[in-house]
Amino acid sequence: MTILGIDPGYATVGFGLIKGNRSRQEVITYGAITTPAGDPFAARLKQVYDDTCLLLEQFKPDAMAVEELFFNKNEKTAISVAHARGVLLLAGQAMGVPMFEYTPLQVKQAITGYGRAEKQQMMEMVKRLLKLNQIPKPDDAADALAVALCHMRSANNLLSSVGGSEICSTI
Amino acid sequence: MTILGIDPGYATVGFGLIKGNRSRQEVITYGAITTPAGDPFAARLKQVYDDTCLLLEQFKPDAMAVEELFFNKNEKTAISVAHARGVLLLAGQAMGVPMFEYTPLQVKQAITGYGRAEKQQMMEMVKRLLKLNQIPKPDDAADALAVALCHMRSANNLLSSVGGSEICSTI
Repeated sequence: MTILGIDPGYATVGFGLIKGNRSRQEVITYGAITTPAGDPFAARLKQVYDDTCLLLEQFKPDAMAVEELFFNKNEKTAISVAHARGVLLLAGQAMGVPMFEYTPLQVKQAITGYGRAEKQQMMEMVKRLLKLNQIPKPDDAADALAVALCHMRSANNLLSSVGGSEICSTI
Repeated sequence: MTILGIDPGYATVGFGLIKGNRSRQEVITYGAITTPAGDPFAARLKQVYDDTCLLLEQFKPDAMAVEELFFNKNEKTAISVAHARGVLLLAGQAMGVPMFEYTPLQVKQAITGYGRAEKQQMMEMVKRLLKLNQIPKPDDAADALAVALCHMRSANNLLSSVGGSEICSTI
């Protein structure tokens, strides 16, 4: 089973592709889609869409796991990221890949066993679980790998408290 | 000049196409894209995208005017509508139509001369400006016509307080 994890954004979209099963996981690739700050917002959305479609076409993952948005105090940023997340879900739907979503709390719980884990603790666990020599960079890619790990480690157990919600049906 | 006005949403997207110039405007068509409540969210986003592309392909408007989101107290709804708005902007960008955005306050000001106008007053003005026999239904379509009117009535004056912001460049 291969899973593409996604950390949504309009300036930076983290992605992480892993393979394995519930008890053992390894990295295939990871990285980030970045869009130029000077570009019009709609052009940045189109780049996010096009690059995500290319990733899905190239790697054909069995599923895509997308982090849910965290409601923080910066409404304007949350709204802009939600625009990009809409475009990411559209890419998955257009390419016919089953999609699942997890809250940051669910991801932390699946990776560290603790929903309020610190960022550094999360990064260390991603490195350890994937047997990497160092913490993946940028942070957005490490976050995306965490979402992919969360899905793979809980994929057989979707009805448990850690299980995500399916957000699309395959075409 | 033809303008497609858009009132964003994931359950209902209002649209209104008008033609004319700064001093005289008339309706070409209006209506709403609706998506089934029972469908997965990503499938609804895809329907919004596909139907918007069809509208742009069929009518080839000179510009698209998209209402900005109003930050109300329901964060969850605002975030879902922002997902759909991202997909609407992607459709415009993919089809190469120049896009502009206006806040609800700018739309009210352009239509009634008063930024805090009541909904009913807005609807009456849309009907009067477009010389219609009745207020367009559904409300989402009337809202979309108002955004299109706002753009057309202020299009020559983009730097004034009513002028919207260009949110994409043509391809």
